[in-house]
Amino acid sequence: MTDHIAIVGAGCTPFGEHFDRSYTDLVAEACREALGEAGLQPRQIGAAWLSTAFPDVGVHRGRSGMDLAESLGVGGMPITRVSNFCASGGDALRNAAHALLAGQVDVALAVGVEKQRDRPPQESIVKLMVETGHPFYQKGFTAAGSFAVFAVRRMKEFGLTREDLAAVSVKNHRHAAGNPKAHQRKPVTAEQVLGSPMVAWPLTLLDCCPTTDGASALVLVREADAARYRSRVLVAGMGFSVSSGWDAPFHDDAFDFIGFPAVRQAAAAAYAQAGIGDPAKEFDLAEVHDCFSINELIACEDLGFCGRGESPRLLRDGVTRLGGRMPVNPSGGLLSCGHPVGATGLRMVYEVMRQIQGVAEGRQVSGARQGVTQNIGGPGAVAFVSVLRRM
Amino acid sequence: MTDHIAIVGAGCTPFGEHFDRSYTDLVAEACREALGEAGLQPRQIGAAWLSTAFPDVGVHRGRSGMDLAESLGVGGMPITRVSNFCASGGDALRNAAHALLAGQVDVALAVGVEKQRDRPPQESIVKLMVETGHPFYQKGFTAAGSFAVFAVRRMKEFGLTREDLAAVSVKNHRHAAGNPKAHQRKPVTAEQVLGSPMVAWPLTLLDCCPTTDGASALVLVREADAARYRSRVLVAGMGFSVSSGWDAPFHDDAFDFIGFPAVRQAAAAAYAQAGIGDPAKEFDLAEVHDCFSINELIACEDLGFCGRGESPRLLRDGVTRLGGRMPVNPSGGLLSCGHPVGATGLRMVYEVMRQIQGVAEGRQVSGARQGVTQNIGGPGAVAFVSVLRRM
Repeated sequence: MTDHIAIVGAGCTPFGEHFDRSYTDLVAEACREALGEAGLQPRQIGAAWLSTAFPDVGVHRGRSGMDLAESLGVGGMPITRVSNFCASGGDALRNAAHALLAGQVDVALAVGVEKQRDRPPQESIVKLMVETGHPFYQKGFTAAGSFAVFAVRRMKEFGLTREDLAAVSVKNHRHAAGNPKAHQRKPVTAEQVLGSPMVAWPLTLLDCCPTTDGASALVLVREADAARYRSRVLVAGMGFSVSSGWDAPFHDDAFDFIGFPAVRQAAAAAYAQAGIGDPAKEFDLAEVHDCFSINELIACEDLGFCGRGESPRLLRDGVTRLGGRMPVNPSGGLLSCGHPVGATGLRMVYEVMRQIQGVAEGRQVSGARQGVTQNIGGPGAVAFVSVLRRM
Repeated sequence: MTDHIAIVGAGCTPFGEHFDRSYTDLVAEACREALGEAGLQPRQIGAAWLSTAFPDVGVHRGRSGMDLAESLGVGGMPITRVSNFCASGGDALRNAAHALLAGQVDVALAVGVEKQRDRPPQESIVKLMVETGHPFYQKGFTAAGSFAVFAVRRMKEFGLTREDLAAVSVKNHRHAAGNPKAHQRKPVTAEQVLGSPMVAWPLTLLDCCPTTDGASALVLVREADAARYRSRVLVAGMGFSVSSGWDAPFHDDAFDFIGFPAVRQAAAAAYAQAGIGDPAKEFDLAEVHDCFSINELIACEDLGFCGRGESPRLLRDGVTRLGGRMPVNPSGGLLSCGHPVGATGLRMVYEVMRQIQGVAEGRQVSGARQGVTQNIGGPGAVAFVSVLRRM
């Protein structure tokens, strides 16, 4: 029994506003690209995992595996729906890997999708959540608010500035100009980021990822079976951890509002599997979960690219920009691609695969052989990290 | 590598109205019983799977693995949330098995929970679903309505009567009198079932399972590791299938409004793994998904206990009652236990385990060595079947 799996096909719809396409259409498009690359028909998939995080604030699709069966037009396949906040995509990949490594299936499909632009008025959702006791909204917390406190704490501890935050957004929007599948491809200046409407101090609108529709899909096999496929990238390591959210810290987590224990735990597990000794030197690129600009800075530290508080310097020194020693978010990240929640974790893997294949035209990291993805969920409590490698 | 897993600890809260206990409390109680039986601490679990189907129509808990981490008081564990309509519980067990069989963890926990009695007014939920485009509610369909059509079709095809339906409810409520964890333990008469308020013709209130709070948990290891535990029951076979719902049938499913292709597919897979040749003779008991009385009758046929249209006779002949050749739903089934959606699939496994252990006081199937569970979801589109065996 092999210990690793390989990706032999990947698909991703353009991320953006797709009022003209249904949930089912988006899933079908991503699956078509992935299965086409692998040279497989839907019937040849042994089992599938579907990641959609929030059917109830979207189009009420993706509550069960049935919606993927419908897109594929295949009955009789086992399809699990996983949902783990914004890290749902990574968890779909992980559960698919288990079934492959257990020998239960020979070909697995992991699909992530979220259709977020067709939705009821935001006000009515929030109102229902407050009325029905949703614990976050009752406390008045939003996603932006829950990460803004990390920025504030880092201002106090490390002298982080609003300009440091804006620099993340500027870099990632510049990267996105080369990514035809990104939602927001227009470059922005630091002045524009700083001057855009304040969402949750110190995060402005351009420090936040947009609300986006999209789907992503991966076809997976055991490493030993990969040789027969034209495209193949090794999943050298995976880690997944559920730790405390900052709203309910466990005593042993030493939650400090600076970084995320779950990310450090997931990275440690993935690095151990992949034999990564020095994450600051061994990756050619990273796709990290920059739902807000602050999150990319935190990710660079939790993933071991630099020490605590040092990520703004890494950015200023040009290390993490395209052309630098280790580009972070060459795709444009969530800030530019957008964040169709269930799809994001798999979209990151799609990007790193295309980079390793050397076909990321317009944003290619030259000589990319090994990359890392980091996908977080909830208040940083759920984290998935994967290491991908040329094979 | 072994091909099977074993259950070495099981837990189940009483099913009922638990206004005095939170989601977290229910999870903790079920896990305490399961871990206690296995002699393990939460820290010794390698990974967990949490099944909650509908956080948004309940207490907004169970959207991610975080809520299980909080109940266990453990950070740093990988926890997947699965959600597959009413078959979520079975799918949690299946995904836990994959991780064990892949050698990724040595001890796995599968937990199902739903807290349904604390909820906003039903009207406001349905109103939101209609307004926001929920496809079922827009068509005016409810769970009762979606299965009532099977009863009507069977009246035409096989001469099914309302009395046949009522007999299921009478039998299962009688069984429940011996189950201290059932929600509705009061016996009912056929006259009471037939005279109770009509919900969706021909299903009356007492043909429908109640709305219930509850949690169930299983501790799982590989078969080869089971010998060191005091309690152990083999999961000899599992099958899971996602097929067409009757609202969107695929062409190859020959959907006939008589039975469920997904159940037949899941049963075939589980029976093949477990080496079951004649399901009508080899099981000592069954726990099946009688969310409505009609569903138990359909289940008996889809699981191969009798031919098409013959299940009412099986019931009339006393085969499926306690004391009969193969009791079906000795626990009282969903009709009496209630149906905390995410918990049900695991509660069935809990019941069969206790029967095989010979400790199902008050409802014991004498000499039970092998049983089957059947858990369905959505409009019969998602199905899980497991075969459990004394070891």
